[in-house]
Amino acid sequence: MHKRRFTRGLARIKKKEDAPEYGFGSISTSNDQRMLNKDGSANVIRLGEPRFSIINLYHALVTMPWWKFNIYVLAIYLFGNLFFAFIYYAVDPNGLGGMTYHTEYEKFLEIFFFSAQSLTTVGYGRLNPVSLFDSTVAAIESMVGLLGFALATGLLYGRFSRATAKLLYSDNIIVAPYNNVRFPTADKAIMFRIVNARKNQLIEIEALIMFAYNEEVNGSIVRRFQQLKLETEKINLLAMSWTIVHPIVPESPLFGLTLEDIESVDAEFIVSIKAIDDTYVQQVYTRSSYTWKEVKWGVKFESVISKNEQGITTIDLKKISSFKSAE
Amino acid sequence: MHKRRFTRGLARIKKKEDAPEYGFGSISTSNDQRMLNKDGSANVIRLGEPRFSIINLYHALVTMPWWKFNIYVLAIYLFGNLFFAFIYYAVDPNGLGGMTYHTEYEKFLEIFFFSAQSLTTVGYGRLNPVSLFDSTVAAIESMVGLLGFALATGLLYGRFSRATAKLLYSDNIIVAPYNNVRFPTADKAIMFRIVNARKNQLIEIEALIMFAYNEEVNGSIVRRFQQLKLETEKINLLAMSWTIVHPIVPESPLFGLTLEDIESVDAEFIVSIKAIDDTYVQQVYTRSSYTWKEVKWGVKFESVISKNEQGITTIDLKKISSFKSAE
Amino acid sequence: MHKRRFTRGLARIKKKEDAPEYGFGSISTSNDQRMLNKDGSANVIRLGEPRFSIINLYHALVTMPWWKFNIYVLAIYLFGNLFFAFIYYAVDPNGLGGMTYHTEYEKFLEIFFFSAQSLTTVGYGRLNPVSLFDSTVAAIESMVGLLGFALATGLLYGRFSRATAKLLYSDNIIVAPYNNVRFPTADKAIMFRIVNARKNQLIEIEALIMFAYNEEVNGSIVRRFQQLKLETEKINLLAMSWTIVHPIVPESPLFGLTLEDIESVDAEFIVSIKAIDDTYVQQVYTRSSYTWKEVKWGVKFESVISKNEQGITTIDLKKISSFKSAE
Amino acid sequence: MHKRRFTRGLARIKKKEDAPEYGFGSISTSNDQRMLNKDGSANVIRLGEPRFSIINLYHALVTMPWWKFNIYVLAIYLFGNLFFAFIYYAVDPNGLGGMTYHTEYEKFLEIFFFSAQSLTTVGYGRLNPVSLFDSTVAAIESMVGLLGFALATGLLYGRFSRATAKLLYSDNIIVAPYNNVRFPTADKAIMFRIVNARKNQLIEIEALIMFAYNEEVNGSIVRRFQQLKLETEKINLLAMSWTIVHPIVPESPLFGLTLEDIESVDAEFIVSIKAIDDTYVQQVYTRSSYTWKEVKWGVKFESVISKNEQGITTIDLKKISSFKSAE
Repeated sequence: MHKRRFTRGLARIKKKEDAPEYGFGSISTSNDQRMLNKDGSANVIRLGEPRFSIINLYHALVTMPWWKFNIYVLAIYLFGNLFFAFIYYAVDPNGLGGMTYHTEYEKFLEIFFFSAQSLTTVGYGRLNPVSLFDSTVAAIESMVGLLGFALATGLLYGRFSRATAKLLYSDNIIVAPYNNVRFPTADKAIMFRIVNARKNQLIEIEALIMFAYNEEVNGSIVRRFQQLKLETEKINLLAMSWTIVHPIVPESPLFGLTLEDIESVDAEFIVSIKAIDDTYVQQVYTRSSYTWKEVKWGVKFESVISKNEQGITTIDLKKISSFKSAE
Repeated sequence: MHKRRFTRGLARIKKKEDAPEYGFGSISTSNDQRMLNKDGSANVIRLGEPRFSIINLYHALVTMPWWKFNIYVLAIYLFGNLFFAFIYYAVDPNGLGGMTYHTEYEKFLEIFFFSAQSLTTVGYGRLNPVSLFDSTVAAIESMVGLLGFALATGLLYGRFSRATAKLLYSDNIIVAPYNNVRFPTADKAIMFRIVNARKNQLIEIEALIMFAYNEEVNGSIVRRFQQLKLETEKINLLAMSWTIVHPIVPESPLFGLTLEDIESVDAEFIVSIKAIDDTYVQQVYTRSSYTWKEVKWGVKFESVISKNEQGITTIDLKKISSFKSAE
Repeated sequence: MHKRRFTRGLARIKKKEDAPEYGFGSISTSNDQRMLNKDGSANVIRLGEPRFSIINLYHALVTMPWWKFNIYVLAIYLFGNLFFAFIYYAVDPNGLGGMTYHTEYEKFLEIFFFSAQSLTTVGYGRLNPVSLFDSTVAAIESMVGLLGFALATGLLYGRFSRATAKLLYSDNIIVAPYNNVRFPTADKAIMFRIVNARKNQLIEIEALIMFAYNEEVNGSIVRRFQQLKLETEKINLLAMSWTIVHPIVPESPLFGLTLEDIESVDAEFIVSIKAIDDTYVQQVYTRSSYTWKEVKWGVKFESVISKNEQGITTIDLKKISSFKSAE
Repeated sequence: MHKRRFTRGLARIKKKEDAPEYGFGSISTSNDQRMLNKDGSANVIRLGEPRFSIINLYHALVTMPWWKFNIYVLAIYLFGNLFFAFIYYAVDPNGLGGMTYHTEYEKFLEIFFFSAQSLTTVGYGRLNPVSLFDSTVAAIESMVGLLGFALATGLLYGRFSRATAKLLYSDNIIVAPYNNVRFPTADKAIMFRIVNARKNQLIEIEALIMFAYNEEVNGSIVRRFQQLKLETEKINLLAMSWTIVHPIVPESPLFGLTLEDIESVDAEFIVSIKAIDDTYVQQVYTRSSYTWKEVKWGVKFESVISKNEQGITTIDLKKISSFKSAE
């Protein structure tokens, strides 16, 4: 039965010879697997990657969430301290001056704290290296400590200077009644909404929607892509929310399709937004995708904008996904 | 009476079907509220924003004025010191070696200075941690100190590398007599002036003026936008001042309008300037706006440029807003 | 005989009056020297460069491999320590307090470790400068140390923020049978493949192939360049591998040529890829080149894409250069 | 006589209604003052600039030469030390522990070195603050020291990441015989040469030449600008030298002019080069200018390119300005 619907949906989509390449090739999807995850990453497994690379490690440390980053920093500090403490303790525990321990356990603890004092270069000095071996290790440890905090400086700056823009997308892409003098032949449009989740301003915002669907070519199912023409492709300032609208004119590949049709071809709407972050003057790219399961038919968005008592325009970020029946 | 003027002003503005989107939607202004503040930020209240975010905190620390930033840094240093001092004092005040206090007050002070010496990693060592608890806290404090100064390094660099371009705008946008062979049908033009407030050079400067006004559509007032065509849209180098000019040709939406007309439609001129900062090779964006209250009718700008005794061109930044009667 | 083949190959390449400049001028190659190395650098010797420049040094430290960078850092630390140690030892070895040496050798070692403790600013303090000379040198050394680690911080950040994108190119450029409704006049195409070697996403990828060959003009051999028109010049997302294809239509300069022809004109295919690194939102440029020796005729690439048991698309990076016979 | 020549030169320059704006307005030059200095900065005096700004200070520290920067850093370190030393010495010289002085002079020196040990956070500890006042000042000093080195870190990174591209321009712009099938109507061309002075690669290089000259309009002399059409406006890779050529076709504003003509109109050729630095993937902009005094008539450039014994192309940077007679 899926097969039958597939054929029907397919027959209704207008073909375009010069369909653009999105970069996924023509591999079809199956089992309702989406091609692009909600966070904009590709839903692809990569084999044969190098097991370890210092750049991938840096990449991971810059993109992981803050709580995870903090745990890593603490863990690296703790294990670095322990590593050097074991070296002092194992090779030359009596090469340090100023120790006051009474038990073997206290001895290790004093060595551990000496290690911490060397790694952070606080170097109080009550505990200090006397023997040749311990002096050498301490010289290495304090250099490693400084380089470690140099790295942390770069990582912190990298995390902050990178993660400056965040868009909220509406949970659904909706098909709503539409009436616009510029598109007289469209009585429906497909649309979603975005809003800036941060305080920084976004300018020169551009949007792109690609419609991905399965097609049968010579007996095998291939993935096709068509760009959907937007009512407005670019705005100057994302001060309010922005509703990105594709009017379903007769030329649209979506014209005449029903929810069953787009289900049958495993439709996915791949969304790319490009903007400039005004605070750091940085180009910002976000992507997301809506599968046919996230399409709502015959509804319309509720307004997120109102005026407060002073007459100042007010926008409510929490309503970004709210919609109501369209009749 | 406002209503009457509104209708009159409206009737005189040429309609354009494909008016561009600026990003404010079609919400009308009221009570003389401007849409864009003079500093280029949107005059909008945002609800539902996350109460706290580490990125918004960073953003605030990078964009606040220097005096405020310095107070924050000093306060964080002082309270960080106090915080750790209280821990030592409350839990194990006698776990430190080398103390010389005579009174309880001096005891706390010595602990406070030990805390400061740990946080900055100066660690003179007369005061040094002996007990297990104090050694542990000191190991944490010196690491926190290093990370704190790593953060400060990034913040300082972020502040400097960001805030490198600043334009001075003339206080008013003026309507002046105009005579240019390229625009023979214009006898008036609307114009404002900019000058680089910094020593760094700005290149490839582009300007855009949007004319925003209220319009009555089906009984409700909506906001419309029209881009004003400029005499020159781009210059190579902002070496002098630049007067950005929109000739009021018959095709202009401003043609035939009076000051009363633009008041009645709550006119606002939204200005965007784009340039490249030549020192840091960074794209620079500034925005500002002039409401109808900031329009001066029938005046012309005084020249900011002269020649000194050696014949070298001289520009006086203080005259950027100076104008004189145009008759 | 080379001469004869050269003439034949030449006669078959369609001339274009407005051949674009690549930046190599019209110097011919000889002795099978390639113009562009595989890593994208130009195969050119530069004379008259300034012997030393601090910027070239920084450049070298940022672009050298990690193992080399680490050795440099260790060596600079070691020699910096030794340099200051010799100064203390040569001028005023007894100006330090807290020494415990018994032999001259131990004396030098203690001075060396004092030097290390000053350079890293750990400053335990058992060893400390007492005399005027040693105090002065120590004040300089600790400042040099801090500036050195400030430099290391910048270098580490520079290395990480720079080296974020890496493409894998197929080892060969191949000439394969071709059948595409958009290019009905082509039955062969020349193509190579790329894949992202890193975990970060690459977006807005653009490709360019220049065909470089020798031509005889007025008796002297000059180098000519022609851009090859691609099936697809840009894709949105490099999620999979991307095969960059030039269909050999009759208008192509490669039409009708054989492997002997392209050998006779010392053909080189110069490849430029431009993309945006999505993690750091940075433009990325890579170049490479294939000489006629790296052209494989009459083969086709094996697919790198498959589906795993869960139906998720899987890509195997190790197969990027795999091809098989095309018959 | 200058006047006469001026009129003659003027009469020969083809007028263009839509001459582009360069950003200098229409102020004429006089006394042979150039508009753009050789380093690309505008030859303009700016009045009314804010006397001091922290951003201008940063700007100055990032752009000054290295020897000057190093002197500043040393001076700031020395005076910072002295400043705090005077505070300790003036208010509470006996508040430090561990001093060993015999004379008042030695006392000040010990305090000075304590100050240095606090500022660098090396804090050996023999000298250490005991009194409340000195402890407080030391806590401030070590924080100031850390922030100072945080600033130095940013400045060093700013200096290195900025100053990565440098072009060498030929000393002269020359008018040489010209013969190119694409421009059959030109028998002369005006040209200059550039070469990359650094080891990093420059890609996507674009050039622009503006011809600036005086013109008499209604009795007053104004400055006009015309863009000169180039043989090649963009090359992919600056591997060799690049000769930027404007063929003097009949449509050129330079057609038929002599050296006397361009002298009489105070001609200046304003040159802008745009490129991408391949190592740091940074846009690079340089500007320079040639006045009529730097035009050489009837010469041609000597080649900078040759082949070494191994047949590898070799370029000699020192010959970039070399030319020879053209007959």
